Amino acid sequence: MLKTEIDYDEMLSVLGRRLQPNAIRKLTTLLGNREVISLAAGAPSFETFPIEELAEISARVIRDRGRFALQYGPTRGQSALVEAVVANLRSRGIESSNPSQIVMTTGSQQGLDLIARVMLDPGDVALVELPSYIGGIIALHNSAAQLAGVRQDDGGIVISDLREKIERLHSEGRRIKCIYTIPNFQNPSGVTLAAERRTELISIADEHDLLIIEDDAYFDLHFTEDASRLVPLAALCPDRVVYLGTYSKVLAPGLRTAWLRAPEKLAAKIELAKEGADLSSSVLDQAIVIEAIRERLIERRLPELRKFYQVRCAAMLDALDRFAPSGSRWTKPAGGFFILMELSVGTDATSMLPDAIDNGVAYVPGQPFFVDGSGANTLRLAYSRETPTAIADGVERMCRVFQNAKAQGQA
Amino acid sequence: MLKTEIDYDEMLSVLGRRLQPNAIRKLTTLLGNREVISLAAGAPSFETFPIEELAEISARVIRDRGRFALQYGPTRGQSALVEAVVANLRSRGIESSNPSQIVMTTGSQQGLDLIARVMLDPGDVALVELPSYIGGIIALHNSAAQLAGVRQDDGGIVISDLREKIERLHSEGRRIKCIYTIPNFQNPSGVTLAAERRTELISIADEHDLLIIEDDAYFDLHFTEDASRLVPLAALCPDRVVYLGTYSKVLAPGLRTAWLRAPEKLAAKIELAKEGADLSSSVLDQAIVIEAIRERLIERRLPELRKFYQVRCAAMLDALDRFAPSGSRWTKPAGGFFILMELSVGTDATSMLPDAIDNGVAYVPGQPFFVDGSGANTLRLAYSRETPTAIADGVERMCRVFQNAKAQGQA
Repeated sequence: MLKTEIDYDEMLSVLGRRLQPNAIRKLTTLLGNREVISLAAGAPSFETFPIEELAEISARVIRDRGRFALQYGPTRGQSALVEAVVANLRSRGIESSNPSQIVMTTGSQQGLDLIARVMLDPGDVALVELPSYIGGIIALHNSAAQLAGVRQDDGGIVISDLREKIERLHSEGRRIKCIYTIPNFQNPSGVTLAAERRTELISIADEHDLLIIEDDAYFDLHFTEDASRLVPLAALCPDRVVYLGTYSKVLAPGLRTAWLRAPEKLAAKIELAKEGADLSSSVLDQAIVIEAIRERLIERRLPELRKFYQVRCAAMLDALDRFAPSGSRWTKPAGGFFILMELSVGTDATSMLPDAIDNGVAYVPGQPFFVDGSGANTLRLAYSRETPTAIADGVERMCRVFQNAKAQGQA
Repeated sequence: MLKTEIDYDEMLSVLGRRLQPNAIRKLTTLLGNREVISLAAGAPSFETFPIEELAEISARVIRDRGRFALQYGPTRGQSALVEAVVANLRSRGIESSNPSQIVMTTGSQQGLDLIARVMLDPGDVALVELPSYIGGIIALHNSAAQLAGVRQDDGGIVISDLREKIERLHSEGRRIKCIYTIPNFQNPSGVTLAAERRTELISIADEHDLLIIEDDAYFDLHFTEDASRLVPLAALCPDRVVYLGTYSKVLAPGLRTAWLRAPEKLAAKIELAKEGADLSSSVLDQAIVIEAIRERLIERRLPELRKFYQVRCAAMLDALDRFAPSGSRWTKPAGGFFILMELSVGTDATSMLPDAIDNGVAYVPGQPFFVDGSGANTLRLAYSRETPTAIADGVERMCRVFQNAKAQGQA
């Protein structure tokens, strides 16, 4: 019926052509119906969802305020929620926060996408940690920025490496716009940025006129006193930082309610970008979150939630101690959902994954988290989803696969 | 404290600099607390929201399936909802639809944004109607496309003008990628694309290798038998059309649940773009919509909903007949929410708006809907929000302002 043949590839934009699938979501889809112990999925456990409370809240919100909760809402977000976010930011030490700096987003992923869109042109450089969150990498990549990796060790970003990378890029005539960091209990490494490096990072950003994108999704999920006292970069230098927080990890990710705080001028641009992107995030979700905050549902559950993930983290660390092959090492998180495991040099975590899945356990190979293509011998382990028993069992199965591969000289 | 002064404007990307506020949302914000009869807001009436049913559904969905409804979901959308969309598309005559062509979106606005991002590079031309939906214009504009306007009359796009514009643009060496159209009860004009022009539009798209973006947000809200029988462009030529539908107008916009159907190859790209943009839309909203469809809540309410808006449309048309100044004309919608009014040539609808607001009525000046800068003497009137009595009252007040301006020689 068509006269003219359609070449859809030919119709695409530069972005349309460069889009890459998210390795984790691809894997999650693949695993969908397989009965495996998943150390891959980094989602919160559904056991932590306050189901009965949210059922009650949602019905009440719709009955009492349905004419607002079911209607279009302001792009920046429901004003009561914006006010609650401001209070939350102040409690985190980001004192100067005010509503004109806040934009509610559909998960922090949207925050990352919007910032990348308003800031990055093709050829601009964005610095990211090695490894870094895949969703953050994708958002930056989709703006056609060049991504440059900065090494981490157990104290987070290695400051000397950061300085070297900046100097090298500048000597190549590149314009560096920002550095994307997850300072607390990083995804995927579980590592936390040391206090003294936070001030160094700020001073480097200041020196080189960089914006810091601080993704603090796991802020509330610390396991130790020390970790709870770490100061956000946005508290140290609010003018240089776009700060991202979310209710996904402490309430429920399906509500897709997160927020960002940016210097006012950038927040205004981000609001405009969001207006074009979707007008607003789910208004009902926001109304539910407002009620959950008012009833102190989130606040009251935090101690229990921290304990919940701490127990699982401990189960994974114990199992790794018992079963991990010699020559491997792994991080010891002070919060969050993730451990990064590093196998002996020369080992390939990707090639062993099918065998692991056949043995009833899944993990995420680390390489996609490293923008420089390194990390082939690493893998991300999430302790958020499975029970402590299943975690121990899963780690044992996985390590057996690694040991066998080693014995057969494949690793 | 900062060593280096921050120039936020200097930090922005090309998109960051070109972002423009949405004239309607700006106006809505302005009017927020003013007690006026709003013929400006094009949102559905909250009287149409099935509050009790949605309250009951939301609580039940969270209780029964909270572990899924509150968790991260697939980027394309919940599979049960995707299946329901496919069934809906088939009922609209788009027979070949299948799940791999569907992506659920945060309102149709996100659908527009995602399509624009995967298709349009700076300099590409997108054709739009004169006038067209502001959100659509913004989404296309944000991709740095050049927008070219095609005239409409009471039968929709003027085909001869479409041919002329295409030829002129091609002779200028421009690449035209797509045409964005709202064929039924258009926002802002209320006009419907005539049946014979639909086939002509398809054949022109085919001849010039254009994609059609068909925004059918008001499909279900027809007032006449004739309008209900019009065939979507996507039914005539599914390979050349990205088709957008939404639950915002027939259920509740705060649920932010819409969908698009695209040729499979484009849908796959749009899915990847959405993955980077927000991972997924609200999972709870989708779960609620699935239940509303299963219980035939939407379907059962449609006849009543059509009647609801038809009565309001009639009230507005009656009032215009009685009060409109001589020399003005307006469209007669066969569905949807909007009437476009055209005042005598030389009249400026924008300059009379403050006076109208002072007299207790608001409308949207038409000019921002015209990408060629024309339409200064037009305005968009929405009959979706106010009661029939308030509509009649509002139109009378507004027309009195127009008459006074005319008497004083300002118009």
